[in-house]
Amino acid sequence: MCYLFRHTSKPNSKGYFHSIPASKNQFNNLTFQHHYSTNSPCSSAKIVPLRCAIVRLMETQEGSASKPVIDFHDINEELVQKMVYDALVWSSLHGLLVGDKSVERSGKVPGVGMVHAPFALVPVKFPENHFKLACEVAPIFNELIDRVSLDGKFLQESLSRTKKVDVFTSRLLDIHSKMLEMNKIEEIRLGLHRSDYMLDEQTKLLLQIELNTISSSFPGLSCLVSELHRNLLKHYGEWLGLDSKRIPSNNTVNRFAEALAKAWTEYNNPRAVVMVVVQPEEHNMYDQHWLCAALKEKHNVTAIRKTLAEIDEEGELLPDGTLLVGGQEIAVVYFRSGYAPTDYPSEAEWRARLLMEQSLAIKCPSISYHLAGTKKIQQELAKPNVLERFLEDKEDITKLLKCFAGLWSLDDTDIVKRAIERPELFVMKPQREGGGNNIYGDDVKENLLRLQREGTEEDAAYILMQRIFPTVSPTFLVLNGISHKDHAVSELGVYGAYLRNKDKVIINDQCGHLMRTKVSSSNEGGVVAGFAVLDSIYLMEQL
Amino acid sequence: MCYLFRHTSKPNSKGYFHSIPASKNQFNNLTFQHHYSTNSPCSSAKIVPLRCAIVRLMETQEGSASKPVIDFHDINEELVQKMVYDALVWSSLHGLLVGDKSVERSGKVPGVGMVHAPFALVPVKFPENHFKLACEVAPIFNELIDRVSLDGKFLQESLSRTKKVDVFTSRLLDIHSKMLEMNKIEEIRLGLHRSDYMLDEQTKLLLQIELNTISSSFPGLSCLVSELHRNLLKHYGEWLGLDSKRIPSNNTVNRFAEALAKAWTEYNNPRAVVMVVVQPEEHNMYDQHWLCAALKEKHNVTAIRKTLAEIDEEGELLPDGTLLVGGQEIAVVYFRSGYAPTDYPSEAEWRARLLMEQSLAIKCPSISYHLAGTKKIQQELAKPNVLERFLEDKEDITKLLKCFAGLWSLDDTDIVKRAIERPELFVMKPQREGGGNNIYGDDVKENLLRLQREGTEEDAAYILMQRIFPTVSPTFLVLNGISHKDHAVSELGVYGAYLRNKDKVIINDQCGHLMRTKVSSSNEGGVVAGFAVLDSIYLMEQL
Repeated sequence: MCYLFRHTSKPNSKGYFHSIPASKNQFNNLTFQHHYSTNSPCSSAKIVPLRCAIVRLMETQEGSASKPVIDFHDINEELVQKMVYDALVWSSLHGLLVGDKSVERSGKVPGVGMVHAPFALVPVKFPENHFKLACEVAPIFNELIDRVSLDGKFLQESLSRTKKVDVFTSRLLDIHSKMLEMNKIEEIRLGLHRSDYMLDEQTKLLLQIELNTISSSFPGLSCLVSELHRNLLKHYGEWLGLDSKRIPSNNTVNRFAEALAKAWTEYNNPRAVVMVVVQPEEHNMYDQHWLCAALKEKHNVTAIRKTLAEIDEEGELLPDGTLLVGGQEIAVVYFRSGYAPTDYPSEAEWRARLLMEQSLAIKCPSISYHLAGTKKIQQELAKPNVLERFLEDKEDITKLLKCFAGLWSLDDTDIVKRAIERPELFVMKPQREGGGNNIYGDDVKENLLRLQREGTEEDAAYILMQRIFPTVSPTFLVLNGISHKDHAVSELGVYGAYLRNKDKVIINDQCGHLMRTKVSSSNEGGVVAGFAVLDSIYLMEQL
Repeated sequence: MCYLFRHTSKPNSKGYFHSIPASKNQFNNLTFQHHYSTNSPCSSAKIVPLRCAIVRLMETQEGSASKPVIDFHDINEELVQKMVYDALVWSSLHGLLVGDKSVERSGKVPGVGMVHAPFALVPVKFPENHFKLACEVAPIFNELIDRVSLDGKFLQESLSRTKKVDVFTSRLLDIHSKMLEMNKIEEIRLGLHRSDYMLDEQTKLLLQIELNTISSSFPGLSCLVSELHRNLLKHYGEWLGLDSKRIPSNNTVNRFAEALAKAWTEYNNPRAVVMVVVQPEEHNMYDQHWLCAALKEKHNVTAIRKTLAEIDEEGELLPDGTLLVGGQEIAVVYFRSGYAPTDYPSEAEWRARLLMEQSLAIKCPSISYHLAGTKKIQQELAKPNVLERFLEDKEDITKLLKCFAGLWSLDDTDIVKRAIERPELFVMKPQREGGGNNIYGDDVKENLLRLQREGTEEDAAYILMQRIFPTVSPTFLVLNGISHKDHAVSELGVYGAYLRNKDKVIINDQCGHLMRTKVSSSNEGGVVAGFAVLDSIYLMEQL
C-alpha cells in the first residue's frame, strides 16, 4: 500500500486534515498537513509570548508574502494548459517521476508504472531574507545534532518518560543503551538532514516544524522541480512577469552524493559499497535512484539496495566489526527506511538495525543521530538555556532560537491549561513517527482533559506545539496529468550535510532546498481532501 | 488501440509471423517482422543471381558477424539481473520511455502511464564496413528521393497500375495530380528519412528493406539507447569484455531538430511555428517530444501538435498560400501521422492533407517525397538503368546498387514462375502501408497461382522481394521490466536529413542510426509470438 501524494483522509468535524499514515520517503503528512489551518489565521498572535522564552512577539508587517506569484484572475486558461502540457513533457523526459501506485509492480520494479511527480505549475514566492536565514542555520543545526548525539545521557534522560509509553522509541533507546554499554564510538559521523519550516503569516516568522535526521526525502526530485520551473519561466516568464533567475540554484542531489562519497572515502576500502536501506515497496524510488546515479557517475561509488529483512538474512558482522551484506563489505549505511514502526513488522528488522549499529559501517544516521531528531528532543532543545549546553557561539544560538516555534511538554501545567482554553492555537503531536496522529482543534482540548482525568503516563507520548498559520495562496497543482487550481500552503525544507572523522569536520553545509505545497481549500462543511505537490522557490525582496 | 511492441499475431501454418497492423511511429511490424525466417537460412544463396542485375553473387565468408556479442552460456545470471536493474533505472531517469498501453490516457496525456521503452540489454555486434556503407549512402538516397520527387511523370506512371487496386495510394496520387495541375512548386524541400537494412548472413550483404520518407520513427529514443548501452558498458564492460568506445556516436535527435530549425529559418517568419501532425493516440509520444524539446531548447523554435482532424477543423489557407492552424502560421509541417490508411478514417483527414499540400508551408514530407518512398517506387528504382535517370555519379550509383535487394514486379513472369517453385526465398509485399500484410512461404505460391488464375489487375498491388536471412543471435531483451533471453535478429536504420531551397542544398547528411532487434525463436509447432526492442550498434572489425 502506498499513499504517496493523494491521501484518503477525511476532515474531522472541525474540518481539519486527519491523514492516514504516510511514508517519510513520501510526502510526510505527519509533519506537513497539520500545522496550519485556514480558519482564523489571525488568532495565532495571542499565544506566542507565553512561557516560551524563545518565541518573540510579532509585529504585524505589511509585505507581499501573502500575494500569489501571479495574478490568477488574469491568467489565460489556454496559456495555463500549454504550460501544464510542457511541464508534463519536461517531467517525463527529465526523470521527475514516481511510481504510480495504481499500477502493479510500480513500487518494486524500476521502469514500470511511472507517472510524473505531482508539482506546482509556478514556483512559490518566498522572501529572500527568510530563505537566507534557513540556509544559514543549516550548518548550525548540523553541528547541534552532532553535539546532542554525543550526549547519551541527555538523550536517554530526555526520552525516559517517552520510553514508557512509546514502544518504538523504547526499541530505539534499547539499541542506544546497548551501544552506550559497549562504549561504541562512532568516529566517522555522517548526517544528511532536512529542516522543515513554515512561514507564519501574521508574525512573518519562519518557524521550524521539525528536523529530519533520518531518511530526508526528495534530495533527487527537489532539484528537478527547480529546474522544471526555471525552464517554464524561461519560456513563459515574459507572459507571467516572472524572471527565471529568481529561482535559486538547487543542487541537493550532487551535494548529498558528494557527502556519501566522502564518507565512503573516509571508510577507506575501495571494495566496500554504500548500502541504501529501503522499504520493500517504494513508490518514491526515482528520488533515491537519482542520488545513487550521482554517486556512481560522479564518484564511481556503487550503491546497493537492501530491505531490513534482507539485511537480517544476508548480514554478517565480522569479529573486527566489518559489516558484510550478501558478502559485500558495507562502508556506509544510508537509511531510506527504518524511521517508522511499520518498518519493523517483525524481530528480523530490529535484529538488522542492531547488527548495523554494532558494525564499523558509517550509519546515516546512527542511532544517536536518529534519536536526536525526535520531536521530544526538539522540544527539550527549545527549553530555555538548553541550546547553551551544546553550542558556544551566542550568535548561532540566537539564530536557531529565531526559528523555534513554541514547543512544550505536557507536564507544563500552565500551557496545558492554556491549550484547553484555546485549543485552536495548538497542535498536539505524538512522539511516534508515521503520520496521521497529530491532534487539532477541539480534539486537543478533549484529549488533554482525558489525560488529566486518567492521570497515567500517556501524556509523555505527546508534545504541544504552537499552531502555525501560513499564508494561503491560490496555486495550480498538477497531479496525475491534471491541473487543479486551488488554495494552498507551502513548507520549506533546507537540506544539510555533515561529515566528520574524529576531530576533523569534513563537511558542514547547507545543501539545497525543497518546497512542498499542499491544497488547503476549505468548504463550509469541511476541508476538501487535499494533496501535496513538489514546488520550488521564487525569491522576492526582503520583507 | 495500440500494438506498440508486443503484438498478438499468430503464426500461420508455416510458422511465420503474420502481424497485425502497426503504426509506423511504432515498431513497424510490416517491414520488420517479415524479411527473415529461422528456417533454412542457407537456401537463399540460390535465388539471388536471377534476373535482378543489381544483386551480386555472394561468397560464403567466414566472419564473426554470426557470433553473439557475448557468450551467453558463460554469463553470470546475477550480473545480468544487476545490469537489467541498472538499465531500467537509467531508462526511467533519462526519458527512454513510451506510453504503457495498458494504462488509460497513456497515449494522450504526457506524464501518465509511462513505461521504459523495450530495449536489448547489450548492443548488437555489427561490422564496421557495412555500417560505414549505410552511412555513406544516406546522402545519396536523400538526393535520389529529391530527384525522383521532381519527376511527377515517373511517379504517376510507376504507380498507375497500383492506383487501380490500392485506394490509399490512389488518394495520395490524386493529391499529387492536383499539385501537378496547379503547377505547385516546392522551392524549400525538407526530407527526414530513414533507410532500413538487414545483413544477409550467407552473402554478408547489407540489403535495404525499405526507405522511409514519412514519419521516420525513433529519432529521439535511438540516441538514448546508444547512451544507455554506453553507460552499461562503462560499468559492466570489463566483465563482458566489451569496450563502450565501440558504440558509435548517435545524435539523430539534434540533427533532425537542426534540420527542422533550418527549414523554419528558410521559411523566414519568426512568428511561424513547426506543426507536428500526430495521431489522436500516440504511445510513442516521448520519441516525438525529445525532438520538439531539442527544437525548442537549442533553436528556440516552437512546435505545436495537431491531428489531421484538428487541422481540418482549425486550418485555413490564406489567399497567398499561408497556412494557419488555430490562427498560428505554420512554417513546417512534420508528419508523424498520415502514412497509413487508418490515419484517414474520414474525408476530414484527406481534406487536411490536401490543405497542407496546397499551402506554402514546408511539408516534411511533401506528397512527392511521400510517394517516392513507396515500395512500388523502390522496386522501380531497382530495375536496371533506372537509377541512371536520376543520378549522374557512377560511384554513387554503384554504392546504392550494392544495397538493393532483389525486387520485382509481378508482371515479371520469369520471377513469378521461380517464386512459385521456391516460395521460401521470396516475400510478397503489398503496396499498402500499415503492416501485417506481407506474404511468406507456401502462401506466396498459393497467392501467385490464384492471381494467375484470376487474371485481374490485383497483381499490381504487390511486389516480390528477395527473402533476406539475417543472423540469428541469442539476446537479452527487456520488456515491461522483465528480461527475456531469446534468439533474435536485428535491423539497422540510418537516418538522413535533406534540406534545399531552390538550387541551394542546405543540408544533405546522414544523421545517426537506429537498431531494432526482434525475437525470432521458433518452436516445433510454430514461431513464438515475438516482440521488437530498441537496440544499438557495437562496431567490430571489417569482415
